Amino acid sequence: MKIKAINPNTTLEMTENIGTVANKYTSDETEVVAVSPERGPVSIESYYDDYLAVPGILDEILKAEDGDEEYDAFVNSCWGDPGLDACREVTDKPVVGIAEGSMYVANMLGANFSVVTILPRARDFIEEAVRKTGLEGHCASVRCTELTVVETENTRDAAAEALLEASWEAIEEDGAEVICLGCAGMGGLDDPLEAELPVPVIDSVGAGAVLAEALVKLGKQTSTIRTYKPPESKEIIGYPDRYQR
Amino acid sequence: MKIKAINPNTTLEMTENIGTVANKYTSDETEVVAVSPERGPVSIESYYDDYLAVPGILDEILKAEDGDEEYDAFVNSCWGDPGLDACREVTDKPVVGIAEGSMYVANMLGANFSVVTILPRARDFIEEAVRKTGLEGHCASVRCTELTVVETENTRDAAAEALLEASWEAIEEDGAEVICLGCAGMGGLDDPLEAELPVPVIDSVGAGAVLAEALVKLGKQTSTIRTYKPPESKEIIGYPDRYQR
Amino acid sequence: MKIKAINPNTTLEMTENIGTVANKYTSDETEVVAVSPERGPVSIESYYDDYLAVPGILDEILKAEDGDEEYDAFVNSCWGDPGLDACREVTDKPVVGIAEGSMYVANMLGANFSVVTILPRARDFIEEAVRKTGLEGHCASVRCTELTVVETENTRDAAAEALLEASWEAIEEDGAEVICLGCAGMGGLDDPLEAELPVPVIDSVGAGAVLAEALVKLGKQTSTIRTYKPPESKEIIGYPDRYQR
Amino acid sequence: MKIKAINPNTTLEMTENIGTVANKYTSDETEVVAVSPERGPVSIESYYDDYLAVPGILDEILKAEDGDEEYDAFVNSCWGDPGLDACREVTDKPVVGIAEGSMYVANMLGANFSVVTILPRARDFIEEAVRKTGLEGHCASVRCTELTVVETENTRDAAAEALLEASWEAIEEDGAEVICLGCAGMGGLDDPLEAELPVPVIDSVGAGAVLAEALVKLGKQTSTIRTYKPPESKEIIGYPDRYQR
Amino acid sequence: MKIKAINPNTTLEMTENIGTVANKYTSDETEVVAVSPERGPVSIESYYDDYLAVPGILDEILKAEDGDEEYDAFVNSCWGDPGLDACREVTDKPVVGIAEGSMYVANMLGANFSVVTILPRARDFIEEAVRKTGLEGHCASVRCTELTVVETENTRDAAAEALLEASWEAIEEDGAEVICLGCAGMGGLDDPLEAELPVPVIDSVGAGAVLAEALVKLGKQTSTIRTYKPPESKEIIGYPDRYQR
Amino acid sequence: MKIKAINPNTTLEMTENIGTVANKYTSDETEVVAVSPERGPVSIESYYDDYLAVPGILDEILKAEDGDEEYDAFVNSCWGDPGLDACREVTDKPVVGIAEGSMYVANMLGANFSVVTILPRARDFIEEAVRKTGLEGHCASVRCTELTVVETENTRDAAAEALLEASWEAIEEDGAEVICLGCAGMGGLDDPLEAELPVPVIDSVGAGAVLAEALVKLGKQTSTIRTYKPPESKEIIGYPDRYQR
Repeated sequence: MKIKAINPNTTLEMTENIGTVANKYTSDETEVVAVSPERGPVSIESYYDDYLAVPGILDEILKAEDGDEEYDAFVNSCWGDPGLDACREVTDKPVVGIAEGSMYVANMLGANFSVVTILPRARDFIEEAVRKTGLEGHCASVRCTELTVVETENTRDAAAEALLEASWEAIEEDGAEVICLGCAGMGGLDDPLEAELPVPVIDSVGAGAVLAEALVKLGKQTSTIRTYKPPESKEIIGYPDRYQR
Repeated sequence: MKIKAINPNTTLEMTENIGTVANKYTSDETEVVAVSPERGPVSIESYYDDYLAVPGILDEILKAEDGDEEYDAFVNSCWGDPGLDACREVTDKPVVGIAEGSMYVANMLGANFSVVTILPRARDFIEEAVRKTGLEGHCASVRCTELTVVETENTRDAAAEALLEASWEAIEEDGAEVICLGCAGMGGLDDPLEAELPVPVIDSVGAGAVLAEALVKLGKQTSTIRTYKPPESKEIIGYPDRYQR
Repeated sequence: MKIKAINPNTTLEMTENIGTVANKYTSDETEVVAVSPERGPVSIESYYDDYLAVPGILDEILKAEDGDEEYDAFVNSCWGDPGLDACREVTDKPVVGIAEGSMYVANMLGANFSVVTILPRARDFIEEAVRKTGLEGHCASVRCTELTVVETENTRDAAAEALLEASWEAIEEDGAEVICLGCAGMGGLDDPLEAELPVPVIDSVGAGAVLAEALVKLGKQTSTIRTYKPPESKEIIGYPDRYQR
Repeated sequence: MKIKAINPNTTLEMTENIGTVANKYTSDETEVVAVSPERGPVSIESYYDDYLAVPGILDEILKAEDGDEEYDAFVNSCWGDPGLDACREVTDKPVVGIAEGSMYVANMLGANFSVVTILPRARDFIEEAVRKTGLEGHCASVRCTELTVVETENTRDAAAEALLEASWEAIEEDGAEVICLGCAGMGGLDDPLEAELPVPVIDSVGAGAVLAEALVKLGKQTSTIRTYKPPESKEIIGYPDRYQR
Repeated sequence: MKIKAINPNTTLEMTENIGTVANKYTSDETEVVAVSPERGPVSIESYYDDYLAVPGILDEILKAEDGDEEYDAFVNSCWGDPGLDACREVTDKPVVGIAEGSMYVANMLGANFSVVTILPRARDFIEEAVRKTGLEGHCASVRCTELTVVETENTRDAAAEALLEASWEAIEEDGAEVICLGCAGMGGLDDPLEAELPVPVIDSVGAGAVLAEALVKLGKQTSTIRTYKPPESKEIIGYPDRYQR
Repeated sequence: MKIKAINPNTTLEMTENIGTVANKYTSDETEVVAVSPERGPVSIESYYDDYLAVPGILDEILKAEDGDEEYDAFVNSCWGDPGLDACREVTDKPVVGIAEGSMYVANMLGANFSVVTILPRARDFIEEAVRKTGLEGHCASVRCTELTVVETENTRDAAAEALLEASWEAIEEDGAEVICLGCAGMGGLDDPLEAELPVPVIDSVGAGAVLAEALVKLGKQTSTIRTYKPPESKEIIGYPDRYQR
């Protein structure tokens, strides 16, 4: 089985980490290839970043579908599941978002969960991801920190400390029973944090990857009957050939 | 007062119609300038189209903010309010989506409303716009037709007929008390439809334009404290200079 | 255009202030006439006050409809939108409540809003107004003070101070991105408060008035198909002739 | 025990029927006195009627509280629970609405319920009563008929037939497991309808009366800590002395 | 009238208390017989306890239905309403849960209520009971203590103190207007607590008992049309004869 | 990896089918052992059956935890997830319900899903399972048939036909984009049905099994901090030793 994990931003260290984490959790016979789009922001922290990242994410799926790459599933690896609906329109292979994947996993391990994440401005963005999945009733809280996306990746000790503090607040003040790490850049921090916390800590890329594997095993594909049928054929002015449907 | 109405797609006939309708409803001293992005799909019917349109929409706001254009407000003129959150990050001038605008107007005129709109595949897209605004409890139904976006503009008689039929179904089967025309391409069909229906029919571009005018009169700007503060400065690889923050 | 702004209570200083504020925000060619009912409580702070005010509010619309006054729209100027549904039954001209108007405006300017308002007992009353509109998901909090309605009007400095404190709590503890001033008596305090706060502050009467203007420009009337059709003809024992339908 | 059942409208035949039904279901040692207000509409079918009835309802409670009447509880006997919040402010004796009472009873007898009621225009009014109580998730449907309030009382056979038809639709199309008769005028029709239907049929006045009795037995009074504390003392211009607090 | 109050656990002191409380609040001519199942946990504090208690609860109803006991209604006397749906399948006589009963009563006495209850682990269990009834929108909070079920019964002073503290927190921090005592073992503590608190305090067994009485007076039975029709006849392996349907 | 799939009923043909289906979808190196409890109903169709099955389900987990069986996870294999919360209290190994598992899978493959299932009486039971998971907003409908549980297993052709019809209704009338087979007895019918339908069809046991496998790969265990901590130690009267905690 071969899975393409798309890091929606263009920071290659993060892409590498995503590949490492995803391969750590999936089966030996599953190969996860992590990629970054050719174009887009170096991190996603605002709605602006989010929307400018989506064309690049779609391009990575279009490449796989149109070219001679052979993938069985895709993992959209940002904790806002950017453009997930559009991804499902351009392939009928399963596409799993790491936000939704984390929440399904959390929902099977505790009566509720909290998300610990980056900058305060991202709260609305994260809450939308929760809401999109339908699990807002199980979300005890979204706890933001002062971490940027790049800091989650580059200053591991400081990031771990900030997330530890936010997690304790979620547990003690909001009654959280599971912690979701709300950014792909936090990949690999689940075990060290879990060692210090009394609750399970979910790595989002890991969760997304094992769920993508699960869907491939089930042999099911995305429904193309209505919402996710292929986009109508039309001119997309100013976009490369690959985008023309 | 000067308002920029952005047609998120690149079909110029529709842009022209948006300008005509918006100027019809706003005050004489208000000038509405309708524009299309330089890049993007010729119509928005799928999530794919929606996401590929957003960078072009943002560009139209960035131009206005960075250059020497002087606008007091913006109207995002597609009934899915594409990228509306991102628009609000790149300007603190009011940005009104025509979907939200239509629904606020409808909510002041009846106990509930239905949206009559284009292809069945757009139902989820439309429902998301309703949900984003918070008014799902007031939405009696979303009634799709077999109309494409371009047909709403180019085959007026057929479009009017299909919308009339969908409106009657909404009124008789779903108990709708107000009809929202769920596509900017339907601009100008409100009066002919209202002439044949027992309920008010809301033109979306008209609704968006008069609400934008209202916000300017109130003299209020978008909150920049958290969700809509300007995007963090960072590299946006592969995007023109104007997008670099 | 001529708009009748009905102050639901019988305190004339407040009526005068409502007129001043509404005319300040609306166009020069729009005339807003503020009135008080002939009967009813001097302020609305309880459900009791609210219900005893409604017959007087309705009377002001009945006068306009039956007599020779010529109005294009009505603004129900109490932040509980008292009797708003009944108002819409006795006229097909647009009737805008200042609570709903404030919330639509706030919802276009931030990801959420808080309402700062009068006595704690009014919380349920205010929350009902929020809920009626459908926007409870966007309401970060309702923050009450120890202010009576009359104090909001008569002791401006103390009122401003109490509202400032409540607003800071809403911003810092509840994450509010926009503040709605939750009483018509607070008219005119929006600018001084906004000068000291990092978020937009919405004057309710102003919001209601510019939205009423917007509806008139759109040329739409209240739906009379079902909920808001004229009341059935019947005897209303003990009420003056004007109430008999 | 002595309970005052207030018929919110001024049709005395209906008041008499309310008394008969309430006394039929309550204990022998409980006396239910049914009254009509001195002022108000002869029936409640619109929001307009509803609001014009409330001052009269309140008067009946004020009389009991201020004068030398001795009641242990009140039943607000219209299936919209008009002014119920205000009633609870002017007495700390239990006040039960027949709409809420019907729904609590229905919720203990089936997995869901439908309300069969009067004219289509009342749907929104009825749905508000359901929503106020919090039980909308258990309400399978509201089924309106062409019956006026007076017809439910005066043309019993025709009323029973129309309600039977609406009930069958609720059972077969909406999956209703319990039927609530949604108007006090339908008092006494529960048994004949239940004889022809495969589900329990709830008489609203009966339900309200036995719940009022239950509250008195428990010896609890309305909470006066915040929402339902007595109204602030103030002038109520143009209202009789009894209304002045 | 004869009512069977089933204490779902096997602690007989608690059963006795349930009988005392229920008979205190119901009419003289009503006899409430309190019983414990023959099998099951000595207290219900976890979902595990809850599920192991249900077969015994059902047995007490089966006995009454199949044997020569004559009861008019049943009260399921644990504040989680364990197995309430199943109880309603095996008898068509009214079955009232003390959780739902408490909440209906509370909802008629205040704008909202809080539940003060046992160990923190029970929060989810209690919240499910609230949610099942549909009243989560009226529930200001669930406040847990460090009390076990047995302690609520056996160490009355300590229990009262802990509940008083939790109640004050609910009132002051969560705005509770009514307190529900969230465990049958707290029976009899309502009056002493109410003496020290500014809000009504609801005894759950009392509330359940008077509502059961009310349903019997109304003469209505559980709907057997769909959800609560008698279980299909089938073999229940390893269960005594009485369980075989 | 070794997973125990517990068929909550005592029909051994169904247990065998559950084992076959689960092993078909999971990896070669994963062994799924399907078992039935020693006690309980031969099928689960009512709440009564559901509650009488739970002690047996718990016994199968207690055996695995206390004895010398070695399992990595459990699958609760009835589409009502009976006693799932209690299961999570008695083991910290992952326990996946097939209802929740089906819905998570469906939610990743389409914008919504419908459940096609057994007898009409089970609708409430199925809807509770949907609600428990939080995904009611994504559930287009629950479509019942006249099939008993045993018939889904024993009369495959008739079962397939009834499910096909219900699925078409869900697709055409309710807009379903994915079909969930709402009973473990339907195991193996997903492919034949999918061959005749334009949407993915989810086998519940398969979905539960691959998700259990995914959780084991992630290496996470159930949160024991609050809701799912081990039950308090106490006497469980009349239950075998294994149940005593």
